Amino acid sequence: MKQNLSRRLVAEALGSAMLVATVVGSGIMAESLTKDVGLALLANTLATGSMLVVLITCLGPLSGAHFNPVVSLVFRLRGDLNLSHCALYVLAQIAGGLAGALVAHAMFGLPLVDFSLKVRAGPAQLFSEWVATFGLVTTILAGLSADRRALPWLVGLYITAAYWFTASTSFANPAVTLARALSNTFSGIRPADAPLFILAQIAGGLCAFILMNWLLSRDVISSARSQEASS
Amino acid sequence: MKQNLSRRLVAEALGSAMLVATVVGSGIMAESLTKDVGLALLANTLATGSMLVVLITCLGPLSGAHFNPVVSLVFRLRGDLNLSHCALYVLAQIAGGLAGALVAHAMFGLPLVDFSLKVRAGPAQLFSEWVATFGLVTTILAGLSADRRALPWLVGLYITAAYWFTASTSFANPAVTLARALSNTFSGIRPADAPLFILAQIAGGLCAFILMNWLLSRDVISSARSQEASS
Amino acid sequence: MKQNLSRRLVAEALGSAMLVATVVGSGIMAESLTKDVGLALLANTLATGSMLVVLITCLGPLSGAHFNPVVSLVFRLRGDLNLSHCALYVLAQIAGGLAGALVAHAMFGLPLVDFSLKVRAGPAQLFSEWVATFGLVTTILAGLSADRRALPWLVGLYITAAYWFTASTSFANPAVTLARALSNTFSGIRPADAPLFILAQIAGGLCAFILMNWLLSRDVISSARSQEASS
Amino acid sequence: MKQNLSRRLVAEALGSAMLVATVVGSGIMAESLTKDVGLALLANTLATGSMLVVLITCLGPLSGAHFNPVVSLVFRLRGDLNLSHCALYVLAQIAGGLAGALVAHAMFGLPLVDFSLKVRAGPAQLFSEWVATFGLVTTILAGLSADRRALPWLVGLYITAAYWFTASTSFANPAVTLARALSNTFSGIRPADAPLFILAQIAGGLCAFILMNWLLSRDVISSARSQEASS
Repeated sequence: MKQNLSRRLVAEALGSAMLVATVVGSGIMAESLTKDVGLALLANTLATGSMLVVLITCLGPLSGAHFNPVVSLVFRLRGDLNLSHCALYVLAQIAGGLAGALVAHAMFGLPLVDFSLKVRAGPAQLFSEWVATFGLVTTILAGLSADRRALPWLVGLYITAAYWFTASTSFANPAVTLARALSNTFSGIRPADAPLFILAQIAGGLCAFILMNWLLSRDVISSARSQEASS
Repeated sequence: MKQNLSRRLVAEALGSAMLVATVVGSGIMAESLTKDVGLALLANTLATGSMLVVLITCLGPLSGAHFNPVVSLVFRLRGDLNLSHCALYVLAQIAGGLAGALVAHAMFGLPLVDFSLKVRAGPAQLFSEWVATFGLVTTILAGLSADRRALPWLVGLYITAAYWFTASTSFANPAVTLARALSNTFSGIRPADAPLFILAQIAGGLCAFILMNWLLSRDVISSARSQEASS
Repeated sequence: MKQNLSRRLVAEALGSAMLVATVVGSGIMAESLTKDVGLALLANTLATGSMLVVLITCLGPLSGAHFNPVVSLVFRLRGDLNLSHCALYVLAQIAGGLAGALVAHAMFGLPLVDFSLKVRAGPAQLFSEWVATFGLVTTILAGLSADRRALPWLVGLYITAAYWFTASTSFANPAVTLARALSNTFSGIRPADAPLFILAQIAGGLCAFILMNWLLSRDVISSARSQEASS
Repeated sequence: MKQNLSRRLVAEALGSAMLVATVVGSGIMAESLTKDVGLALLANTLATGSMLVVLITCLGPLSGAHFNPVVSLVFRLRGDLNLSHCALYVLAQIAGGLAGALVAHAMFGLPLVDFSLKVRAGPAQLFSEWVATFGLVTTILAGLSADRRALPWLVGLYITAAYWFTASTSFANPAVTLARALSNTFSGIRPADAPLFILAQIAGGLCAFILMNWLLSRDVISSARSQEASS
C-alpha cells in the first residue's frame, strides 16, 4: 500500500514534469522560430493540448492523472481522495512542475532558473483565470459523468480552446503557474503575479464544483438518458 | 420533471455561453497577436472546433447539446422535442449566447456590449450561410444515424472545415449570430445583417432535414449494412 | 432495390460535392486572407482532412463513401461492387465533384466555371500522384483489415499528411481532379494536365491493390494476432 | 512461418519508408512555401503526427508497427521479440527509411541522395534527444498498459508535442536519423552528428524501459483500478 502510494506520487510528478516541460519548451522553441506571436501561441497550444491527451491516457490508471492542485482539491471534496493523499499529490505536482521547467531550460541551453519578468495582472487577467479554471473543472466533472473514456481528449481539447479564448492564455493550474514563474520565456509569469492567479484558479474550480454538483445529480441524467433511449 | 427541465435549460444556456465566449474571445485574442488574417481565422477555427467537441460530449447527456435554434427546430420537426420545450431551448440558447459575448468582452477588458460594424451582406454571403447550415444539419442527422457516439467530433470537425470553405466563415447558428452582433471584434456581424443571415440558416437547415428524411429512411441503411456484412 | 441504388448514388454525389466544395472553397478563402502560401495550404489541409472524416463517417453506411473513382475501381477488383454499379458510382462522383466546384464559386461570388491556368506537370508531379494514390489505397485496404471503424479518421489523417509530403499536394482522386480543372483558384489544375494526373492515380491505386493483396492475406494477420495475444 | 516473417519485415520497411517520406517531404514542401520557419515546423509536425496515427493503426496488426530500432530493442528486452527477429526488424527499418528519403527527393525533383550540412550537436541537443526518446518509450509502454487501442493516437500526439518541446525537434529514432542524414533539406542532420544522436536515443529509451518496469508492475495498476471502481 505504501509502495502503491509512492508509485501514484511518481506518476503525478512525472506527468506534471512532462506537462510543464511541454508548455515551457514549446514556448521557447516557438519564440525562437517565428516573430509572429500568434503563430507562437498556436504552436504552444498544439504541443500542450497533444501532450495532455497523452499524459492523461497513459498515467490515468496509475494516479488519476490530476497534475493540477485544483483538480486534486475538487476530487478531495468529492471524497475520492483523502486529505493526506491530497496534500502529497499537490507536493508531487509542484515538485514535478519545477523539475519540468528545469528540464526545458536544460534542453534549450538556458540558465536552469530565471525568474520571469512577464507582467500578468489586473482584473481582466484574473477574471480570465477564473473562467479558465471554471471551464476546466466543468469539463472534467461533466466529462467523467458523460463519457469517462473520452476524458483525456476532452481536457486536451478544452485547453486548446482556452489558450485562445481567455485573455490570460489559461494557466488554470497552480502547480504549472509556480513552475512558469521560474521561466523568463514565452510562457513565463512574474512571481509577484502568481498568488492572485492561483487564488482566481481555486475560486473558479470551486464554483464549477458547486454548479456541477447541482447540474449532474444522477436522477436527471438517467431520466434524460431513458428519454433518449425511448425516442 | 420541472426541475429536470430547468437543468436541461441551464445546460443549453451554459453550453451556448461557452461556445460564444470561445468564438468571440479567440477572435479577439487572435487579432491582438497577429496581423495575418488567415492565421487569426486558423486560431479562431481551432478554438471553436475543439470547444464544440468538449461541449457536445459533456452536455449531450443532459440536454442533447443543441446550442443552436436551427438544431432545436429540426429536432422539433422530428418529434424529439415538444413545442414549448423547443421555445424554451431557443430562449436559453439566445440568453446563454449573449452572456457568452459579455464574458468574452470582460476577459479582454473591452466594453461589455459594442454593436458590430462588420458588414456581412449580399447574395454570396447568404448562400454561404445556406450551405453552411445545410451541411451542419446534414452532418448531425446522418451522423446520428451512422455513429451516434461520434457526433461531438463530427460537429467539431464539420465547423472546422466550414469556417474555411464558406465565404461567411459559417455562422450557421441564429443564437450565435445574435450574440456576435453585440461584439465589434474579429467575429462580429452588423446587427442589420443578422436577420437575413438567420433566415438563410433556417432555410438551409430545413432543406437538409427534407433531404435526409428521404436519404436516411431505415430500410436503405439496414439493407446497405447487411450487404456489407455479407461481403 | 432500384430505389436503394438511387440513394447510394445520391450519397456518392453529395459526398463528392461537399468534398470538392471544401477543397476549392477553403483554397479560395485561404488565398484571400493571407499572402503566405504555406499558411494557405495549412488551412486548405485542415479543412479537407476534417471534412473527409465527417463525410466518410456520415455517408459510409449508405454508399461506402468512396467519393473517388480509383477507390470504386479497387472495390470492383475486390468483388465488392459489380461493374454497372461501379460505372454509376464513378458518374455520380464526377457529377457531384463538378457541382461542388460550382457551389464553391457561387459562395465566393466568382464565375461558376473558370478553367484553371495552374500548370501541374512533369515527372516529379506525376510520381507524386502515383505515391499519393498508392498511399491512399494502402491506407484504405490495410485500415479496413486492421480497424474498420477507424477508417474515416485514417483517410482524413492520411490526406492531411499527403497534402504536405507530396510535391503535387496529393490530388489522388480523378473526380476531384476533373472538378479542380474548372476552378482557376488556389487548388486548380490546368485541364491539359488532368489526364496524366488521372493515369498516375490509377497506376498508384492498382500497385497498392496488388501489394496489399499479398501483404494482407488473412492467415498472416490472424497468426500475428494470436502471437500477440499469447505474449 | 518464414513467409509470415517476410510479410512482417515488408510491413516494417513500408511503414518506415512512408514515415521518412513524410518527415522529409513535408519539410521540403514547407520550406518551399513559406519563409517563416515556425510555420514550416508546424506543417512538418502536422504531417508527421498524422502519418504516425495512420501507419501504426494500419500496420500494427502485421508487424507491431515499430518503425524504430529503439522500440524494437525495448520489445526485445521485454521478451516480445527474439534476437534474430529484432536484428531483421532493425535492418528493415533502416532500409525502409533510406528508401523513404529517396522517394521524397524524387517527388520534389531533387538529387536522390545529398548528405546534409545541418549541424545538430552539443550537450543541449543530445539531452533533448535523450528526453525525446525517454518520453516516446514511456508513452508506448504506459500506453500499452493503459489503453492498447489508443496507441496509434498516443504516439502521433506525443511526437506532435515533442517536435516543439525539445530543442532537437525530437528525432527519437535511429533509423529515421540515418535517413535524414542523406537529405540536405529542412529535416536533415549532418552525418557526423548522427552517431551521438543515436546513442542519446538508445540511452533515453533504456531509461524509460527501466522506470516503466517499476512503475507499471501489474499489482499496482490493478489495485488502483479496483479502488477507482469501488469509489
